[in-house]
Amino acid sequence: MTADNTPKTHRLVLMPSGRRGDVPHGITVLKAAASLGVEIESICAGRETCGKCLISLERGTFPKHDLTSIDEHLSPPDEAEIAYAEKYGISLEERRMSCVTRILGDVLITVPEESQARKQVIRKEASDLTIEVMPAMRLYYVEVEPAVLGGPGDWQRLQAALEAEWGLRDLRIDPLVLRTLQAALRNGKWAVTVTVWQGKEVVRVVPGYNDDLYGLAADIGSTTVALHLCDLRTGAVLATESAMNPQVRYGEDLMSRVTYTMMEAGGTGRMHHAIIKTLNDLALRAAETAGIDPRAIMDSVLVGNTVMHHLLLNIDPVELGRVPFALSTQDAVDIKARDLGLTALHPAAMTHVLPCIAGFIGADSVSVLLAEQPNLDSQMTLIVDIGTNAEILLGNRDHVVCASSPTGPALEGAHIRHGQRAAPGAIERVRIDGKTGRVRYKVIGDDRWNDMLDEGEKLSATGICGSGIIEAVAELFLTGLIDRTGRFAPDAAGRSSAVRFNGALGEIVLAPGSETSTGTDIIVTQKDIRAIQLAKGALYAGARMLMEHLGVAHVDRIKLAGAFGSYINPWHAMVIGMIPDCDLANVSAVGNSAGDGARIALLNIEQREIAARAAHAVEYVETGGTTTFQDRFVDAMTLPHASDSFPHLDGALPPSE
Amino acid sequence: MTADNTPKTHRLVLMPSGRRGDVPHGITVLKAAASLGVEIESICAGRETCGKCLISLERGTFPKHDLTSIDEHLSPPDEAEIAYAEKYGISLEERRMSCVTRILGDVLITVPEESQARKQVIRKEASDLTIEVMPAMRLYYVEVEPAVLGGPGDWQRLQAALEAEWGLRDLRIDPLVLRTLQAALRNGKWAVTVTVWQGKEVVRVVPGYNDDLYGLAADIGSTTVALHLCDLRTGAVLATESAMNPQVRYGEDLMSRVTYTMMEAGGTGRMHHAIIKTLNDLALRAAETAGIDPRAIMDSVLVGNTVMHHLLLNIDPVELGRVPFALSTQDAVDIKARDLGLTALHPAAMTHVLPCIAGFIGADSVSVLLAEQPNLDSQMTLIVDIGTNAEILLGNRDHVVCASSPTGPALEGAHIRHGQRAAPGAIERVRIDGKTGRVRYKVIGDDRWNDMLDEGEKLSATGICGSGIIEAVAELFLTGLIDRTGRFAPDAAGRSSAVRFNGALGEIVLAPGSETSTGTDIIVTQKDIRAIQLAKGALYAGARMLMEHLGVAHVDRIKLAGAFGSYINPWHAMVIGMIPDCDLANVSAVGNSAGDGARIALLNIEQREIAARAAHAVEYVETGGTTTFQDRFVDAMTLPHASDSFPHLDGALPPSE
Repeated sequence: MTADNTPKTHRLVLMPSGRRGDVPHGITVLKAAASLGVEIESICAGRETCGKCLISLERGTFPKHDLTSIDEHLSPPDEAEIAYAEKYGISLEERRMSCVTRILGDVLITVPEESQARKQVIRKEASDLTIEVMPAMRLYYVEVEPAVLGGPGDWQRLQAALEAEWGLRDLRIDPLVLRTLQAALRNGKWAVTVTVWQGKEVVRVVPGYNDDLYGLAADIGSTTVALHLCDLRTGAVLATESAMNPQVRYGEDLMSRVTYTMMEAGGTGRMHHAIIKTLNDLALRAAETAGIDPRAIMDSVLVGNTVMHHLLLNIDPVELGRVPFALSTQDAVDIKARDLGLTALHPAAMTHVLPCIAGFIGADSVSVLLAEQPNLDSQMTLIVDIGTNAEILLGNRDHVVCASSPTGPALEGAHIRHGQRAAPGAIERVRIDGKTGRVRYKVIGDDRWNDMLDEGEKLSATGICGSGIIEAVAELFLTGLIDRTGRFAPDAAGRSSAVRFNGALGEIVLAPGSETSTGTDIIVTQKDIRAIQLAKGALYAGARMLMEHLGVAHVDRIKLAGAFGSYINPWHAMVIGMIPDCDLANVSAVGNSAGDGARIALLNIEQREIAARAAHAVEYVETGGTTTFQDRFVDAMTLPHASDSFPHLDGALPPSE
Repeated sequence: MTADNTPKTHRLVLMPSGRRGDVPHGITVLKAAASLGVEIESICAGRETCGKCLISLERGTFPKHDLTSIDEHLSPPDEAEIAYAEKYGISLEERRMSCVTRILGDVLITVPEESQARKQVIRKEASDLTIEVMPAMRLYYVEVEPAVLGGPGDWQRLQAALEAEWGLRDLRIDPLVLRTLQAALRNGKWAVTVTVWQGKEVVRVVPGYNDDLYGLAADIGSTTVALHLCDLRTGAVLATESAMNPQVRYGEDLMSRVTYTMMEAGGTGRMHHAIIKTLNDLALRAAETAGIDPRAIMDSVLVGNTVMHHLLLNIDPVELGRVPFALSTQDAVDIKARDLGLTALHPAAMTHVLPCIAGFIGADSVSVLLAEQPNLDSQMTLIVDIGTNAEILLGNRDHVVCASSPTGPALEGAHIRHGQRAAPGAIERVRIDGKTGRVRYKVIGDDRWNDMLDEGEKLSATGICGSGIIEAVAELFLTGLIDRTGRFAPDAAGRSSAVRFNGALGEIVLAPGSETSTGTDIIVTQKDIRAIQLAKGALYAGARMLMEHLGVAHVDRIKLAGAFGSYINPWHAMVIGMIPDCDLANVSAVGNSAGDGARIALLNIEQREIAARAAHAVEYVETGGTTTFQDRFVDAMTLPHASDSFPHLDGALPPSE
């Protein structure tokens, strides 16, 4: 290898990146790749234990590259590598360990996706956003000097090993982990896998080689809690679980929960413990689904609106319920999971709570920002996350503004006569024939319209969810059964047999009792229509106010976030004037963006920094009590809207059935 | 003040430091003093609230200084200062607030002890060691901007205020303190007193001005736990409490406790919780004695031997019980008191556990080192801290070595027929008349010898403590009732009526049953003498081994630490050859040095650094199993010693009665 005629350097080409360069003779592929900027994963630091650094050898033809001599251009496998390959059924013809394979001549090598240190996780099919896996927790396999009489302590020798092998300095150790250190070192025969948080703190030491490393991302909504269990090494989602927010029993909407803390001593703690218990339950359930040990969950990211944020941290949300709606803190919070009571996780697991923006714009909005990235885009994007309050983000790479609009719970189906949450049995689609006045509908959980059923079948509707009521109002308006002010037309009952009057107040039967689960007619009342007008007016007014604030007349793109956004029909939403005019092709549902953002922050610490900066950069625009908003609000309650035009609706067809 | 003929600078002289220099016209005394290197205490940053920065005005004659014009050379008091002076009965003729008083001419000012930022605490009368009060916890009074709609969160504004007024940057806040922040700010009308740990973390926020700041220093001995409650602002000890170590019920000596953890599942946790409960109880008791709120205890320093150290931290001490006696960690540990279960303290209080040196040399020895500072002295000092093991430190400023000697529990009165702990009623002094063989004694709690009592009185002795048995053995040897091997002389019973034989084994009655509390004779048996020989032999052998290791033939000074050291008579200890030869004038009892060291580390963070460095610098010398030690040990069991001479005993008189 050191013969005089051996050149000092060789040409290395790395696929799929295409990076190439000259590297010294005898260097390992792992180090050579790093010198060309390609990081290959390795947990065991060349001890031929972890098998994370495998590379592929290309043996076929490859344009411009001679691959015939690859066996002579790489050092042969040693005994340990051969043993590993036999144990795991790996062909050393095709794959080699980059940590021990040395470069002896020009080579072209492929670094497969699973061996790249920064794996790319595609967030979802609909988006081109990719996230590199760079979690806050990292694994390091080390062999520690055995203890000797009068020598340094176990933690001191572990520190020395981590510094010598991985360059980790000034590490601290969670005092609870110190309790497990001695047994781990001895059970692992002085070899352990160490989990380090943010390059600063040792949070786990397990005997021998062990690459179990998991994290949780949870979106704590006022009504629903959704949790993803992710593999922190690969970024894969292993399980997704959801549950009702147990705080609902203390108050359906946010303000009633804030009121509860004011009225009931210990109310904050009670709601805190309730949500923490739910998170523990969900974590255990997710671990069971995924077949992993919940104690291997080392990290977690939590997001929620400001009241959820405060209750999560056991901070009394009382100040969020009164002027000037001051946040206890708006920056991200790093906290030991145990200090929150998240006992299902590893005892030294961490929790990161994303930052908030203002009194009504919480970590869930920052999470949406992280997932949708309007701040990186040239297009003017409007994002609405609809709940009891609608959080609205508007902007592009120049500037993003945000506001909260008091839509009330009507869009979630609450305070509506037959309203219900989006769940199987809820009427989610409504069509009214302009000529016959006949009503058709669909329920969640069945693909058929009610007039496509066989004899004797029924859909057994249980109620109406948010999207169903939006469509009902839109269809009533399009057919002229209600007027621009939302009032039933005097001749409405004559034009549709489904419409009836109860004194002066009209109502329409969507599903007669014979087709429902309860035997009662499912109806939309005049009062329900008013509630929807208030909600859509608030949302629209908020969006318009932000547009005026930024001085833009139209938006390029609208993203509807949250469960409601997934069910809603953009065309109907625009018909009733709930969202501003926009090319319908650019109106999309983006699903649980807050949950996506939480997952992004879980998998990538740089994204936590980005979230922190974004939270500070986003400008909050106050709606409550401002004259502009009130004027806009009153104006926006008509159908579709008193003063704005909706050119994109002209000639647009109602959505196909 | 700004007239043209006013000089730009004035001469300031500060007493008692004598520092002097030119300072700008109009500067406050506080800032001017700081510029000359004299730090004056101030918590409220010139808000005329805390009154901590008062200075004295010298009005009498003072050599070389004209003090007549002082009133013209200082700015007059403002309304707030006058109000404060009236409220607290302060004469503004004599004392002024240095934070607002401006220098308008040459002045001489005295900074009284109580206004110096770094107060000097004299540790104890016998020592010249002084410690500056520089605790890990510091108080900062700040006024925070009120919350505004859409403005930054409460914690963000508090950070801004702490940075603007105190230059504190990059502060984090304990997440549990975040829960109290909003109420504190509003109850204090936006003025709060903040406690900051190590300049890094906010651990308390209380409304308005509040300078309650306390700390605990505890020495956890195998048998006894001693705790001091200190004022962290002044350094004063407010209360001292002690209790039995509740772990005694799981094993009297250290090794039986280690064995307990091996034999009983959950044994470590049980002993951990027991000692933590005792510390909580002592903290509450101390707070009650001092009349303070235990929740104002913000810091704590704990020391103990290595097994106590591990059990405190809930670390299984099993490795300390077997070769190679590996410590889990030897460095100091900073831990949230709540993570230890110290719930009597403030929820965000910190605990600092001093470092250990080696498997048998724990944080208590580091604490002794801090209190006695042999490493700063030119004299060769031997320090022995006697318990079940004796920890021995030997050295001077060049080098310090340490060892642990297995003295066993005899010197603490255990495993001695009538042995007991040093407590009222225990025989602590013994004299035997060489001619008559008559025995005299004293008990703890009474100043009189048993032959000084009035008719019908008795001392009601309960047993013999360590110092009593040492004196008994020494007196037996001096009177020839026992020989150099420790065996009773065949004619001993003939020479003293107190001596009797039980078969071949002699024993001596110190107190006949008529004078004891139990009615039983209190005796010293041949077996007791053997136990003392073993103990003193181990101690002496350890000390000699360290002397040989350092190549020194004699020591300049001997310090006896711990409760035992306080009762023991150095002359008698030297007679039996328990300690090496030394000028008796230089043999002293230093009391609970470990507790003193804990208090020093509590009051001064620089001393924690010094302890950390010293722990690394001290060289551990292994005794167990080495041939040198075993030889020395056998040799040292004779009275006083087989091969060494004790020139300082020649001609020295027995201690006066």
